[in-house]
Amino acid sequence: MVRPLITLMTDFGLKDPYVAEMKAVILQTCPDATIVDVSHEVEKFNVRMGAFILAAAAPYFPVGTVHVAVVDPGVGTERPGICIETHRAYYVGPDNGLLVLAAQAQRIKQVHEITNKTLMMPEVSSTFHGRDVFSTAAAHLANGLPPFDLGPEIVKFVVPKFAGTVKRKGAIAGEVIQVDDFGNIITNIRGGELENIGVGRSVKARLKEGEVKMSFCKAYGEVEAGKPLALIGSHGFLEISINRGNAASVFRIKDGDAVTICRS
Amino acid sequence: MVRPLITLMTDFGLKDPYVAEMKAVILQTCPDATIVDVSHEVEKFNVRMGAFILAAAAPYFPVGTVHVAVVDPGVGTERPGICIETHRAYYVGPDNGLLVLAAQAQRIKQVHEITNKTLMMPEVSSTFHGRDVFSTAAAHLANGLPPFDLGPEIVKFVVPKFAGTVKRKGAIAGEVIQVDDFGNIITNIRGGELENIGVGRSVKARLKEGEVKMSFCKAYGEVEAGKPLALIGSHGFLEISINRGNAASVFRIKDGDAVTICRS
Amino acid sequence: MVRPLITLMTDFGLKDPYVAEMKAVILQTCPDATIVDVSHEVEKFNVRMGAFILAAAAPYFPVGTVHVAVVDPGVGTERPGICIETHRAYYVGPDNGLLVLAAQAQRIKQVHEITNKTLMMPEVSSTFHGRDVFSTAAAHLANGLPPFDLGPEIVKFVVPKFAGTVKRKGAIAGEVIQVDDFGNIITNIRGGELENIGVGRSVKARLKEGEVKMSFCKAYGEVEAGKPLALIGSHGFLEISINRGNAASVFRIKDGDAVTICRS
Repeated sequence: MVRPLITLMTDFGLKDPYVAEMKAVILQTCPDATIVDVSHEVEKFNVRMGAFILAAAAPYFPVGTVHVAVVDPGVGTERPGICIETHRAYYVGPDNGLLVLAAQAQRIKQVHEITNKTLMMPEVSSTFHGRDVFSTAAAHLANGLPPFDLGPEIVKFVVPKFAGTVKRKGAIAGEVIQVDDFGNIITNIRGGELENIGVGRSVKARLKEGEVKMSFCKAYGEVEAGKPLALIGSHGFLEISINRGNAASVFRIKDGDAVTICRS
Repeated sequence: MVRPLITLMTDFGLKDPYVAEMKAVILQTCPDATIVDVSHEVEKFNVRMGAFILAAAAPYFPVGTVHVAVVDPGVGTERPGICIETHRAYYVGPDNGLLVLAAQAQRIKQVHEITNKTLMMPEVSSTFHGRDVFSTAAAHLANGLPPFDLGPEIVKFVVPKFAGTVKRKGAIAGEVIQVDDFGNIITNIRGGELENIGVGRSVKARLKEGEVKMSFCKAYGEVEAGKPLALIGSHGFLEISINRGNAASVFRIKDGDAVTICRS
Repeated sequence: MVRPLITLMTDFGLKDPYVAEMKAVILQTCPDATIVDVSHEVEKFNVRMGAFILAAAAPYFPVGTVHVAVVDPGVGTERPGICIETHRAYYVGPDNGLLVLAAQAQRIKQVHEITNKTLMMPEVSSTFHGRDVFSTAAAHLANGLPPFDLGPEIVKFVVPKFAGTVKRKGAIAGEVIQVDDFGNIITNIRGGELENIGVGRSVKARLKEGEVKMSFCKAYGEVEAGKPLALIGSHGFLEISINRGNAASVFRIKDGDAVTICRS
């Protein structure tokens, strides 16, 4: 029998005991769970960055995975906890948009508010729902609990508005959704959109500090070390990179900055 | 059958192979173990910080968990290795106070020195008992070995003296036990102690750089972003925080600093 | 039945979803796998550092372990992916020398190029073979797939030339293979080599900034806090350390720097 799979994503970092407490609580209720860390280094309170990281990782997990995500500046206030069931997985966390990007890509079946106190820790703190509400809910789901036992179905939940792209003649304007640990600048421009503007072997990228011409490649190593390039990254988004270098620091780019890609 | 559960806490960091070597050694002896990292980012040699992190996480783990903890500036010198058995769990590590705070909270049954060389790695290095002595001992305990097979029972072991709190009229003086990754300032003042001085909706905190008045809340989000607050955190201790900010850097506070809380 | 064991080592860091995607892909194919992180904090593109970390950790893992390692500046270019089978384990990753140091220590049985597309992800990105090629290959090996199903046996693969040591009268010249997170300076000089030059209770180390005399110890705690010492570390290499201090920053030493050890 396959062991249940639970993933965790938070902005808690790995120094403090918080992540371990979530795992402990999960293993109390679902001792057989395999627990995988998606990331605990989401920038503090950055719901948008968390949403993109979760949406990047989630498609690779097996059907039936339970994803717990906690980037939750509103913990303990009125924002509800929710469980989103999709055609592939369950998403448990705060109702602040964090879960929706990943869930929408798998088509949402139903959403429940988490209100059933008998499935929470006996004393729910008002600062750590990741442990006291979401981990316990996830462990019960992993054990086979139907989501409607968590609380009532709801139809209104926070749907985040992350920026779209804009097509102008021969150019696509978008923004940076993430700078990864290599300094690769990941934009919200999808590979298919570039075909529409007829991009060839090179492109021009308009960045904060000016316009840069670069090769449009398939792999980082197609240009010399230290040279910039654009490519469609492993999640299907246009990335601006420097072979063996850090594009984000060279071009002084951060999350949310504007990027326009033009024919060259 | 439930799989045995072993936790690891060290000051080794995650860059080096040391933590992986501990896990490898555990899985050699106890291939079915579920291994959970409590933290490997304890400040180097900071036994006190390690003791508090372990004591925070341990209560949430299932009965029978084996906790290995290594913050061990005296490795290879005369300090013994010990195993503390409590009414809930086992604690394995150096006899320097690291394990005792967590163990005492679960009532200590007995303590054994780890001397049985047949249960250690064939060649014990004098710099890495975490791998060669403690991980092997933990794996054997997880397999059901009775602790007295590790070595003789002892009655003298290092009991750390972490600071207590002092009640003065209308005030409680304590200290900072940990600054977490959010910059929350966690003190050694328990929730119940504040009731004794009659704290209301706000408190005054005397910190290194002066006196700050702040709301006494249940959740971070009860004050505006950027405003300070006090609350009882998820482990029962008074915390001083800034909603969506970093209190420790704003108030220039670090581990061990004095904090006094007064009626306001 | 013992669960299959897969280890991961990369230079991806833990902020991004990349490591989680590798684990997701592994668990799709081999849901029972125990996955252990060796390190994801290898310096970006530093194949040499990765090779040493993998070689340090690998000997402690059980027979049959599948090691996946990805430090891969040439991803998506012509460099092949390979699987090295040794008398103890399997190593999967790029053919750039990363795997060979660990594999040679266990005697190499055979090496296969990974070319079988039916065992890869349906769409192989040109930037993330760690997920699309190596993780899937490792999961199939963990399920019992014979390595020759991955692709043809090869006899030519990249063997890295990491520096050796040079013996001069009364001295051994080597270099720094790693600075660990404690600041311990780990050299490529093995314990046995020091016996050849007749080292006693102290040694002189010639470092970039001059010559330092220090005790030759068995444990860090044999000298006072803040004092330098030399010892044979837990992997058998000479280390230069400062008790409770950071030797690398005090002596301004980094990876690859020259070190000469002399009788004192």
